[in-house]
Amino acid sequence: MSKLYFITGNKEKLEEAKAIIPHLEGLKVDLPEIQELNPEKIIRAKLAEARKKYRRTFFVEDTSLYIKCLNGMPGPLIKWFMDALGNKGIYDLVSKYSDNRAIAKTVVGYSNGKEIRIFEGEVKGIIVNPGKINAFGWDAIFQPEGSTVTFAEMSKNEKNKISMRRNALLKLQEYLGHHGHQ
Amino acid sequence: MSKLYFITGNKEKLEEAKAIIPHLEGLKVDLPEIQELNPEKIIRAKLAEARKKYRRTFFVEDTSLYIKCLNGMPGPLIKWFMDALGNKGIYDLVSKYSDNRAIAKTVVGYSNGKEIRIFEGEVKGIIVNPGKINAFGWDAIFQPEGSTVTFAEMSKNEKNKISMRRNALLKLQEYLGHHGHQ
Repeated sequence: MSKLYFITGNKEKLEEAKAIIPHLEGLKVDLPEIQELNPEKIIRAKLAEARKKYRRTFFVEDTSLYIKCLNGMPGPLIKWFMDALGNKGIYDLVSKYSDNRAIAKTVVGYSNGKEIRIFEGEVKGIIVNPGKINAFGWDAIFQPEGSTVTFAEMSKNEKNKISMRRNALLKLQEYLGHHGHQ
Repeated sequence: MSKLYFITGNKEKLEEAKAIIPHLEGLKVDLPEIQELNPEKIIRAKLAEARKKYRRTFFVEDTSLYIKCLNGMPGPLIKWFMDALGNKGIYDLVSKYSDNRAIAKTVVGYSNGKEIRIFEGEVKGIIVNPGKINAFGWDAIFQPEGSTVTFAEMSKNEKNKISMRRNALLKLQEYLGHHGHQ
């Protein structure tokens, strides 16, 4: 039984994943991301890059934020929006439109050297005022449907019960269970 | 004297470049672009990709649009903004802010196998209503400083006299002249 690695430089993402898939190990590799709006293409390119360097069994992930009034932008380009505008700037922008709906989506790409599998998880929600909350990524402006608070205002446990990352990772976990990985 | 190639899949860009650098030849190669806000990094990655495939002397270019009220976004990510929002959507977005200033910037990367040179050209302007004009890229919403019309409303000749692409290509041309290329 080979070890499973999560290629990420992000500690919070690794922790979240470990809570779902036990015995997981992190592998910090800087993989260049291609410019794309299609997250599956980004993930497949990331897997191909990682495969050049490692023979291990691993997965990568990419989480996107699709904002309705921006016709789906920024999607996978959310990190550049965050760099340029921050939570407050993104909220200000969205608040200028009458529709504040968004979809948070995680795409997980798994590769064991023989095959590649793609798993997706998504959560619908709205973009709200971050106030003075300082949290992981854009958690402070994303309020999932059916909730009265943002991801940032939930405990990690609460967030991890409903997150898009969890939804994608559960599908990976199920796949691994059926294929005798762990 | 080796031939000089402009690696681009864009006919309009090739024509514009040929008007400035004679004897230029186009080379249509699909180079993946990395996700970055720093255009010089994008250009260097493109050159490295192209170098893997070709031993020729060539250059690549990337043109960005920095919108002031979006704190510099989308920059090199403009094509995704265009795909998602179009000229009208970008204008609508910018019109919600009180500042409509933008900077158009072209970065050209040249490689002859021995050295790499980077040249930049930029034009300041404002984002205006495209009306019903259908033109190359975002020409219909970009009105250069000192002009009363957009790039789309100028003749190709007029545009090519002042464009950011011209400013960058003239620097490349000057460099080539000094180094006996053409």
